[in-house]
Amino acid sequence: MEAPAQVQADLDRLMPLLDTGLTAPFRQGDAVRLGEAMRYSLEAGGKRVRPVLCLLACEAVGGTPAEALPGALALEYVHTYSLIHDDLPAMDDDDLRRGRPTNHKVFGEGHAILAGDALLTEAFGVLAGAALDPVKRAEALALLAEGAGWRGMAGGQALDLEGEKLATYDLDHLRLIHRLKTGALLRASVEIGAVLGGAAPEARSALRAYGEAIGLAFQIQDDILDATATEAELGKRAGKDAGRGKITYPSLLGLDGARQALEEATETALCHLASLPNRNSLAAWARYLALRAK
Amino acid sequence: MEAPAQVQADLDRLMPLLDTGLTAPFRQGDAVRLGEAMRYSLEAGGKRVRPVLCLLACEAVGGTPAEALPGALALEYVHTYSLIHDDLPAMDDDDLRRGRPTNHKVFGEGHAILAGDALLTEAFGVLAGAALDPVKRAEALALLAEGAGWRGMAGGQALDLEGEKLATYDLDHLRLIHRLKTGALLRASVEIGAVLGGAAPEARSALRAYGEAIGLAFQIQDDILDATATEAELGKRAGKDAGRGKITYPSLLGLDGARQALEEATETALCHLASLPNRNSLAAWARYLALRAK
Repeated sequence: MEAPAQVQADLDRLMPLLDTGLTAPFRQGDAVRLGEAMRYSLEAGGKRVRPVLCLLACEAVGGTPAEALPGALALEYVHTYSLIHDDLPAMDDDDLRRGRPTNHKVFGEGHAILAGDALLTEAFGVLAGAALDPVKRAEALALLAEGAGWRGMAGGQALDLEGEKLATYDLDHLRLIHRLKTGALLRASVEIGAVLGGAAPEARSALRAYGEAIGLAFQIQDDILDATATEAELGKRAGKDAGRGKITYPSLLGLDGARQALEEATETALCHLASLPNRNSLAAWARYLALRAK
Repeated sequence: MEAPAQVQADLDRLMPLLDTGLTAPFRQGDAVRLGEAMRYSLEAGGKRVRPVLCLLACEAVGGTPAEALPGALALEYVHTYSLIHDDLPAMDDDDLRRGRPTNHKVFGEGHAILAGDALLTEAFGVLAGAALDPVKRAEALALLAEGAGWRGMAGGQALDLEGEKLATYDLDHLRLIHRLKTGALLRASVEIGAVLGGAAPEARSALRAYGEAIGLAFQIQDDILDATATEAELGKRAGKDAGRGKITYPSLLGLDGARQALEEATETALCHLASLPNRNSLAAWARYLALRAK
C-alpha cells in the first residue's frame, strides 16, 4: 500500500534530514573499503522506521527534530548493523536484502562483520559526541545500550538462533524472543526521542508503552508478510520462516489469529498515545506499520 | 618473565576490583547461552592491560580507581569482543586463544558473533549507566567510540585483512594499521582514565601521547613474540604472521631493528610521563609491556 497522507508528509519532511546525516561521517578516513561497506548498507534505503519514530516521539513531547537527530542516526546505525550481521552465513544466511546483494556478498564476510561492528560503535559515538544536554545524552546512550544489547536485540537474536533447533515452543517464548529481538530497539527508538525532547515522566512512560506495543505489532506483521508476500514484494527472501519450520505468529495462531493479534497490539499502541497533545503522526505510523506490505 | 614488583603490586591491588565487576552483569537474564558465551571469553584471563592502564592513568592524575572503574570494564569488554570477532573463520580463523578453544569453537559462529556484538554494546552501556559526572561520562564514551570504531580499532582490523592480499607494503602503512588496530584502543584506555580522574588539559595530552607510544611498543613486541616464541609460551598459535607471509616489524626491520624500534617507543612513552607526579606505575608498565613474554 502507499503510505497514508500523514505518514508521507512526515517522511517528506524528515527523510532529507536523515539522509544527509547518515553517511556523511564515513566518507573521509583511512579505512576506505570499510567505509564503503558501511555506506553500502546505510544507503540501501529501507523505511527508516526507527529514526523516524525517534524524531516523531521528540516532536510529540514538544521537542524539535534537530534535538533528536543524533539519537535517530544512532538508531539507524544499530538497525543497519543488525541487518548486516543477521544476514551472515552463520546467522540467517541471506543473499538478498532490500532488493540488493547482502553486505557480505559484496564485501566479503570479514568486512561485513567489521562494518557491523563499526556501525554499532559509531551509533554510540554519534550520540556521545553530540552537542546535547549531558544528562539527556547519557540517558539516551543507556537506553540505546539496553535496547541493543544482551537484554535486548542481541539477546533476542541469540534466542531466535537457538529456537531453530527446538522442536517447538509456545506463544510465551515466541513473545519473549520478539520482545527482545525486534521490540527492544523499537521501544528504545520512541523512548530516546521522548528523552531528547525533554518528556515529563508520564509522557515518557506512555511513549515507552506505545513503543513496546508497536514493536509487537511490527513483528506480527513481519511474520504475516513472510507467510503471504512474494520475494519481489519484500525485496528479500519470502517464506523463509516456513521453509525452515520456524515458529511464527501465523504458525501458532493461524493467519486470522495473527491478524487479530496484530490489530490488538495496534489498538494498545494507540491507547497509550491518548494523553499526548501531538499524537497524530505517531498514531498514523502505528496504523501504517500494521498495514505495510513490506 | 615474571612481572616486576611494581607491576605485580598494581595487579594484586586492582585485579580483584576488575574481576568482580567484569562478569557479574551477565549472569541473570533471558539470553542464557549468550551470557555464557560472553562470560567464557571474559573469564579467559589475559593481562587486562587496557583496564589496568585506565585505572593507573586515573590514579596518575589524582583520581581513585573507583572513579575509572566503569571505563576500565568498558575497555575490557571492547577488547574481549575484538578478540572473539578476530578469531572467527572469516577473519584470522584461530582455534586457540589464551590456551583455550576460541569462542566460536565452543559456542558456534552465530553465538560468537552475537557475544562480540553484545559485549561491544555493554561496553557503552556500563559507561552510560555509571554514576559519574555527566560531562566526564560523555567524554569517556566519545573516546571509547573513537578508539574502537572505523577510525580506530575496527578500521585497523579492516586494513589488516586487506593487507594480507597486498604483495607488500611499507613501514608507513604498517604503522598506520597498528596505530588503528592496536594503538587506538590502548591510547583510549589511558585517556579515558585521565578524563575520569579529572586530568587538567596538559596532563591529559601527555597521557594521550604516552598511550600512543605504548600502543606502538605493544604491537612491535607482539610481532617479535609471534616470530620468536612458541605456541605453549603464547597460549595461541605462534609464527602465524610469518606463516601467511604477513608484513610485520621484524619482517620489515629485521629482529634487531624491531627490538630497537621497541626500545625507542618505550623511551618515548616514558618521556611523556615526565611532568606527572604519580608516574611510577605507568612507567613500570611501559617497561614491562616491552619485555613481556606473551
